[in-house]
Amino acid sequence: MQDIELPAAIRNPDYSLPIMDQKTITSSFILLLFVLLLFSGPGYSQEDDLSRWVNPFIGTHRMGHTYPGATLPFGMVQLSPETNYLPMYIHGKYNPEVYRYCSGYQYEDTVIYGFSHTHFSGTGHSDLGDFLLLPTTGSVDSWLRNNDLTRSSTFSVFSHRDEAAEPGYYRVKLATSGILAELTASERVGFHSYTFPRSDSANILLDLVYNIYTYEGKNIWTFVRIENDSTITGYRQTSGWARTRTLYFAIRFSKAFSEYGHRKYDTVPYKGFYRRFDESRNFPEMAGRDIRAWFRFQTAEGEQIGVRVALSSVSSAGALRNLEAEIPHGDFEMVRAEARQRWNRELARISVETLTDDDRVVFYTALYHTMLAPVLFEDRDGTYRGLDQEVHHSEGFTNYTVFSLWDTYRALHPLFNLIHPDRNRDMIASMLAHHDQSVHHMLPVWSHHANENWCMIGYHAVSVIADALVKGLTGVDTKRALQACINTSSVPYFDGLGDYQRKGYVPEDVSGNSVSKTLEFAYDDWCIAQIAGIAGDRKSYERYMQRAANYRHVFDPVSLYMRPRMADGSWRIPFDPLDTHGQGFIEGNAWNYGLYVPHNIPELIRLMGGRKRFTRCLDSIFETRLDDRYIEKNEDITRDGIIGAYVHGNEPGHHIPYLYNYAAYPWKTQARVRMIINSMYGSGPDGLCGNDDAGQMSAWYIFSSLGFYPVCPGLPDYVLGSPSVKNAVIRLQGNKTLSINVINQSRENIYVKRVLVNGKPLESFLLPHDVIMNGGMLIFEMSNTP
Amino acid sequence: MQDIELPAAIRNPDYSLPIMDQKTITSSFILLLFVLLLFSGPGYSQEDDLSRWVNPFIGTHRMGHTYPGATLPFGMVQLSPETNYLPMYIHGKYNPEVYRYCSGYQYEDTVIYGFSHTHFSGTGHSDLGDFLLLPTTGSVDSWLRNNDLTRSSTFSVFSHRDEAAEPGYYRVKLATSGILAELTASERVGFHSYTFPRSDSANILLDLVYNIYTYEGKNIWTFVRIENDSTITGYRQTSGWARTRTLYFAIRFSKAFSEYGHRKYDTVPYKGFYRRFDESRNFPEMAGRDIRAWFRFQTAEGEQIGVRVALSSVSSAGALRNLEAEIPHGDFEMVRAEARQRWNRELARISVETLTDDDRVVFYTALYHTMLAPVLFEDRDGTYRGLDQEVHHSEGFTNYTVFSLWDTYRALHPLFNLIHPDRNRDMIASMLAHHDQSVHHMLPVWSHHANENWCMIGYHAVSVIADALVKGLTGVDTKRALQACINTSSVPYFDGLGDYQRKGYVPEDVSGNSVSKTLEFAYDDWCIAQIAGIAGDRKSYERYMQRAANYRHVFDPVSLYMRPRMADGSWRIPFDPLDTHGQGFIEGNAWNYGLYVPHNIPELIRLMGGRKRFTRCLDSIFETRLDDRYIEKNEDITRDGIIGAYVHGNEPGHHIPYLYNYAAYPWKTQARVRMIINSMYGSGPDGLCGNDDAGQMSAWYIFSSLGFYPVCPGLPDYVLGSPSVKNAVIRLQGNKTLSINVINQSRENIYVKRVLVNGKPLESFLLPHDVIMNGGMLIFEMSNTP
Repeated sequence: MQDIELPAAIRNPDYSLPIMDQKTITSSFILLLFVLLLFSGPGYSQEDDLSRWVNPFIGTHRMGHTYPGATLPFGMVQLSPETNYLPMYIHGKYNPEVYRYCSGYQYEDTVIYGFSHTHFSGTGHSDLGDFLLLPTTGSVDSWLRNNDLTRSSTFSVFSHRDEAAEPGYYRVKLATSGILAELTASERVGFHSYTFPRSDSANILLDLVYNIYTYEGKNIWTFVRIENDSTITGYRQTSGWARTRTLYFAIRFSKAFSEYGHRKYDTVPYKGFYRRFDESRNFPEMAGRDIRAWFRFQTAEGEQIGVRVALSSVSSAGALRNLEAEIPHGDFEMVRAEARQRWNRELARISVETLTDDDRVVFYTALYHTMLAPVLFEDRDGTYRGLDQEVHHSEGFTNYTVFSLWDTYRALHPLFNLIHPDRNRDMIASMLAHHDQSVHHMLPVWSHHANENWCMIGYHAVSVIADALVKGLTGVDTKRALQACINTSSVPYFDGLGDYQRKGYVPEDVSGNSVSKTLEFAYDDWCIAQIAGIAGDRKSYERYMQRAANYRHVFDPVSLYMRPRMADGSWRIPFDPLDTHGQGFIEGNAWNYGLYVPHNIPELIRLMGGRKRFTRCLDSIFETRLDDRYIEKNEDITRDGIIGAYVHGNEPGHHIPYLYNYAAYPWKTQARVRMIINSMYGSGPDGLCGNDDAGQMSAWYIFSSLGFYPVCPGLPDYVLGSPSVKNAVIRLQGNKTLSINVINQSRENIYVKRVLVNGKPLESFLLPHDVIMNGGMLIFEMSNTP
Repeated sequence: MQDIELPAAIRNPDYSLPIMDQKTITSSFILLLFVLLLFSGPGYSQEDDLSRWVNPFIGTHRMGHTYPGATLPFGMVQLSPETNYLPMYIHGKYNPEVYRYCSGYQYEDTVIYGFSHTHFSGTGHSDLGDFLLLPTTGSVDSWLRNNDLTRSSTFSVFSHRDEAAEPGYYRVKLATSGILAELTASERVGFHSYTFPRSDSANILLDLVYNIYTYEGKNIWTFVRIENDSTITGYRQTSGWARTRTLYFAIRFSKAFSEYGHRKYDTVPYKGFYRRFDESRNFPEMAGRDIRAWFRFQTAEGEQIGVRVALSSVSSAGALRNLEAEIPHGDFEMVRAEARQRWNRELARISVETLTDDDRVVFYTALYHTMLAPVLFEDRDGTYRGLDQEVHHSEGFTNYTVFSLWDTYRALHPLFNLIHPDRNRDMIASMLAHHDQSVHHMLPVWSHHANENWCMIGYHAVSVIADALVKGLTGVDTKRALQACINTSSVPYFDGLGDYQRKGYVPEDVSGNSVSKTLEFAYDDWCIAQIAGIAGDRKSYERYMQRAANYRHVFDPVSLYMRPRMADGSWRIPFDPLDTHGQGFIEGNAWNYGLYVPHNIPELIRLMGGRKRFTRCLDSIFETRLDDRYIEKNEDITRDGIIGAYVHGNEPGHHIPYLYNYAAYPWKTQARVRMIINSMYGSGPDGLCGNDDAGQMSAWYIFSSLGFYPVCPGLPDYVLGSPSVKNAVIRLQGNKTLSINVINQSRENIYVKRVLVNGKPLESFLLPHDVIMNGGMLIFEMSNTP
């Protein structure tokens, strides 16, 4: 601790909470009954086939980074087309073109390289793309000859006219070969159905060279066995975003192949005794770094070949067991129907009526996108590969992976607390297992496939845990969770955390993006304090509440900005509060990122000069046009996602429109939120203004369109906005429902006149979590004037 | 089948067998009593500390390819010094220098690069060298700076004066640093004891770049975790002779290190987010292709630091469990004493008196060398990594690896049938498990560490099985074994086996070394017939007895040589019966390798023109000086191991000296055998004339010095030679013993006048296996005249 004045321990701001009562709800009773009737009963009619409102192409144009392929809710397999085979590095230099292909697909493309089984949804960096299959006809020689690992000579032209996608199903006609490719999936098994023309040389190509974010050397090892004339097993190890990643597979064709072969493109040649074989044809064992294999069939006109591809993080045997347990038959349509049913069941957790069908498509696609991460990561028997690369068994929970926590702690996990509490419990258990397996004794920062990839800043797993505990999630060992959080926040070599602990802030000359880190550490520390409070650990509570005030150490009382500070305590010079690079902030600037004190906004307002000046600051963010030099052509801060200097296309500002409430300008929040809902989300492929970021962008939409938002996860309150739906029913645990009825809803009536909770007016801009979870009726009365 | 005349099915040659009787043994009774008394009782006195007769340096000079380090009988850990860091390839060209370093050590060297935990004993190709440790003092900077993967700048000078080795223990003073390094081992754990001088910078270096047969790109991946200040876990994957090999480790230091670090020498740089850390110092997670790590201690003068290094083929957790179960304490001397006790127990399976102490050293070191392969390959709980790279559990057996079968089926496994039948049963079970895991449905050819390396020819696993079954080994599922043998002998793409099945021989223009292959396939097929006979499968018996006669298809009745034949049936031209390269033979020529029909030598004699001409052929082999152009400077056929044109330094001729018996010249066998015993084996580092080949060369010595040899494994008979011991006791199953008493033994009395079995003269040159296993007394009466 240096000579910086320590703030007094701060407490949770004391927002006035509404008192619940038992008044009867009259005005909305009939509506509630109607809605309940609408969604009850087994099976699904046209009415509850909510999948028809989902357009998986939303976000596939430009920066949404979503994929259109087939997957189940939180499914381990994400089976989707690849329209890119660009290298990530050309002569060692980063190729910025690949950023658009984080999920493998761009809507403007006209060729498909194949279909692979693992994809992130909406992320801003990438990996995966495992096990690329492509059906072709004719010779495979030219495909095999091409030894440039980064370009395949084999692809197919396609047209969006011949393409369709729906939850759990994707279809495209491959124009080059005339093959119809259909995809569906169970949790751990991708199912391809290829309808071939008549051919003596129908091929199914298995390209193990292909990666999302591919480059020479990313493949570490590949091992393939031809178990019999229709079953293949194997694995691939890669070192990319995940440094030490292995994924196993088992593939079963519905028909025996007549011959097969492979070629290796290894730059490090094999020196051993396999040279004694002609491995290239009908040799049932393949191993090396870069392998492409082909399987040959003879097909009649219109003959379908089904290919089931099961994944496992544990072993090929595990993958085979997954395959045999999940899709023991070859009935593609049955799997497709089951997938749609699974989606309908999950989508039905929130029923809405909207002003337009387009709005409904946006809503249900957003809801769909909130269920694509984290994803299942264990075999049917509960075994999975852990962070320590050992095989573990998930005792008492289901293991998940893909924790894009810098994004998802904001609204996605809070949404799970509403509609997927059981899954969120499992996700927390998965994070605690990650901690136990971590040699750093850390919870995940950004983790996927048994790896920590260290992307972005903070240790927001603690926010997910705090939010869940504060909101009453049971089944979490609070003391164990607290210890994991304390361990995580004590790792000195992580991202300036050593200095942060000593000095109360991250010095910019020690660790870049220091203000962002200090602000987020401080919020995370506040979260840990909440967990300590629940665990009854008074000492830790006080220690972490003290750390929670560390944001003050980077507030410059002269410029009234959060501002990077040096190790010697001085402010960094020069200082440009608009610049998003090298100014102490990551993916943001002092102007917008400086508003990040979610756990003590009243104090932030005080520091910034009171509510009037604070409101002017907020206004200026939305109204000032940001100079082009601050805008990125690619990546996170693009024109697509910007309103003035407010960057909706990226996460750090997602709470900003809701901050007017704290300055007693709720109507400004309402207007901004409705503007964002209308301008930043759409029903077409370009319907997302920035990376969906594993569902965070969509979760913002779900909350906001329902009229409230979790500005500070870890507090048991939501902040009111302006709902865009006409009405909604949220299905909660214990057969409870919360009905939301929006009276006088229209495009113009964006202002909330009054909010009634079970008939009683809500006196605050805060909506307590309990109110929602107890169920009942929430009424928004709208108006076209503030 | 082409237009080649099929031989009539042949039968086992009908050698006249002696009839056992119950006559009392009088002349040897007192001796027997004496010997029994000598070796009974617990513990060991000077008398039964047989380890003192073992010189682990035998074979470490030039071509023996043995290692002097510490190991247990058939132990998984072989902890031994490395005196070489040469690359196997220089600018892509094979560097013949590395051949001398198959086991990492050459006696003439003066520097040591460290001590690693896995070594083959005596092989003629190599791999392994896992987890090289070296203690040093002073800065590690120069060691880290050196990024040439094939040369370490850190090594120590040493002198043989400061070096000692005994079974289970090795010691060397590292002259450069003054550190005394001592090594011992349990089955799965290597134990280093380093005695340091006083130093503020005592280091233990862990070099994961080093491999035996090292080259850039051989390392596939390495993963290391610093679990705490004295425990490290991790694994390394390599692709060398074993294409897809992974070995896990757990290392525990007896003292906490004060700091640590690592450097990567990867030619493919890591592209991910670990770049955000300074990984080089005190960062507890390391991953990459080529890693060297260092651990720093402060030591007082004479302070010992113990390092326990456990191995596992399954996981780091498995390695740690092995460590904690096998050496839970830090008492080096206790482990060393236990190792010696284990060796004494195994060496006591054969007790001998010899003419000289030197002979005794040669004998017990040979016996020691017969227990270094195959080696244990499973965790304490029976789990192991199988050929399919899956984790398996050895149900009802102990899993072994390192099957150098082209060598070891000849005498090593037959020796196991005498003195290690339980282990041989486990080895057969391990081979059957290999078959079950093999995607080729093949028994091992040459396998190690969960890999088939396809070295050499034939499928001699079937010989090991046949020999064991014929000799009455129980506990083998005969039908399952037969099916595995049939599957193995039916793989069309293996080494010309498809053509062999169609044509009855391997055509030279289809697959090189075709005569060797044809001859060995034919013998192996005879073995399969024996198994079929035991299994009662008459049809298979007949089919394989027919195949067993395939050697006739490569016998040229004009030149009277076995000779390479083309696919069209013609003999290959030109033909040089002396050349060892490109003439249809591998590591041999028509002259010596052509004698390979062990299962039907009478027929071979007939083909070659009768017993007189046959004997002249044998004589010429021993008496003709082979021209230099046929000799190899390196590798398998060197001057060291040659008598005339007889190559004892390599395996294909090991049965040849015994063949005189079949031509009724037993005295010539006796003379040749004694000459080989005396000239080809010695008690110094140069005491092996060629590769010990996983114990085969030593097993030849054990049998021959006892007076008999298994010329045709799969026949329940041994062929008599001339014993070199004075007397011996072989401890058999069921507390039986066979005593061998050699009367009138001397250097000159090399001829066997008479052999008595329990007092009754043996009427044949064949000694039945039953006679041995029933125990009793075998008396050789020697003379100095034929």
